Amino acid sequence: MPNYLLELSYDGRDFAGWQLQRQGERTVQGEVELALAELFEPGTRVTAAGRTDAGVHAVAMPASFETKVERDDETVVRALNATLPSDVKVRRCRHVPQSFSARFSAAARVYRYQLESREIFEPLSRLRWARVGVAFDWSAVHNALAPVVGEHDFTSFRAAGCTATSPIRVMHRAELTELGDGRGVLEFEANGFLRNMVRSLVGTLIEIGEGRRPAGDMAALLEHPNRDEVGKTAPAHGLYFVTARYPELDE
Amino acid sequence: MPNYLLELSYDGRDFAGWQLQRQGERTVQGEVELALAELFEPGTRVTAAGRTDAGVHAVAMPASFETKVERDDETVVRALNATLPSDVKVRRCRHVPQSFSARFSAAARVYRYQLESREIFEPLSRLRWARVGVAFDWSAVHNALAPVVGEHDFTSFRAAGCTATSPIRVMHRAELTELGDGRGVLEFEANGFLRNMVRSLVGTLIEIGEGRRPAGDMAALLEHPNRDEVGKTAPAHGLYFVTARYPELDE
Repeated sequence: MPNYLLELSYDGRDFAGWQLQRQGERTVQGEVELALAELFEPGTRVTAAGRTDAGVHAVAMPASFETKVERDDETVVRALNATLPSDVKVRRCRHVPQSFSARFSAAARVYRYQLESREIFEPLSRLRWARVGVAFDWSAVHNALAPVVGEHDFTSFRAAGCTATSPIRVMHRAELTELGDGRGVLEFEANGFLRNMVRSLVGTLIEIGEGRRPAGDMAALLEHPNRDEVGKTAPAHGLYFVTARYPELDE
Repeated sequence: MPNYLLELSYDGRDFAGWQLQRQGERTVQGEVELALAELFEPGTRVTAAGRTDAGVHAVAMPASFETKVERDDETVVRALNATLPSDVKVRRCRHVPQSFSARFSAAARVYRYQLESREIFEPLSRLRWARVGVAFDWSAVHNALAPVVGEHDFTSFRAAGCTATSPIRVMHRAELTELGDGRGVLEFEANGFLRNMVRSLVGTLIEIGEGRRPAGDMAALLEHPNRDEVGKTAPAHGLYFVTARYPELDE
């Protein structure tokens, strides 16, 4: 049976997240499956590399589906995009081996979080950048990121409803890029993420950058897991799922 | 009587433009005057450097108002921002001479227009960048911009409802900056703009970049004014009022 891999880009603002919810909740999966039902066959189910929460965006979310219907990749892109609403579109489609799953074949996932420190609230940034305090200490955030890299028990940064069997994850990369003009972008690459893990890490980093807790708290929370000591979860609108890595596919 | 100059930033998406309209239409002027009525006195009227159309954004729109109530600049910024909705905020406030008007004292105005040429529709850019054809010829646009600079009769690029007494304007600057990755930003600085002038210029430039008309059309439309030969008006969401210049104020 043909197995297809899509790359989806979406603006999370008007979605209740990736995953199908109760009737009436608008989800990315729901919109994509509606378009797939039209082009392929009703009941075609799609699996994403990451199940983003309400309000979280995606630059290139891999999502795979199997169907007995054979179509060429360009047709799939064009036809799905003709059906999909303007806040979710297909960037690319390709055929992948039968054994491939966007979720289970992913060796790593990359998330980005956009922070903005400005004296005045910015109407033109408000949908894409999370606002942090003025006089934000970027170098404290930089220092707090160092201990995040490596294999850790991320229990401190896990949402109450997280269903993962293990809280252990390997963080390959945790970087801050200062763009100037009060903006900074955090990037995290790990073999996997627990529910709300990025937003929880960022929430603690924001409190460190705002001088409300010492940079050393990050290492402490990783060494001594304690969900009660963690920072307030950062807002969804600053978070982007960037991409996933598949060593088995030729990139 | 104290005369105040504000700098406003707004996201034009949910506004029917700057200027007060019929009841029920949400305008930037309407929101600002509501906030001024609360902080100063009912009936306080505000005048902007430019009256942007529905959907057009502003990075820093100068807007002045007179009132007999005296307040310090920081208080004005803080109090207005506490009242204003999230899509329009005050960046700055200062006292200006009694004779000053944000509209009539402006020696020049600057607009920016954001173009994006990508094969696939981009959900994350759709509210801020106007989409143009693939294989867009940026150098043709660059060439077409050269004759725009200088004093011209801009009748070709004037909307039907424009009420300006003269169609003559002096364009100080008309530039394209290519950002790479299919993005380009146009910037126009002139002593004034006719109604829809930037979007009309950009509409013609888009048709030139897409290879649907020769670059020489721009010079021809300036030399021989003819509204019937002009390109389709470019969409509002790619347009930003950037700033205005006031030689009489110390910047």
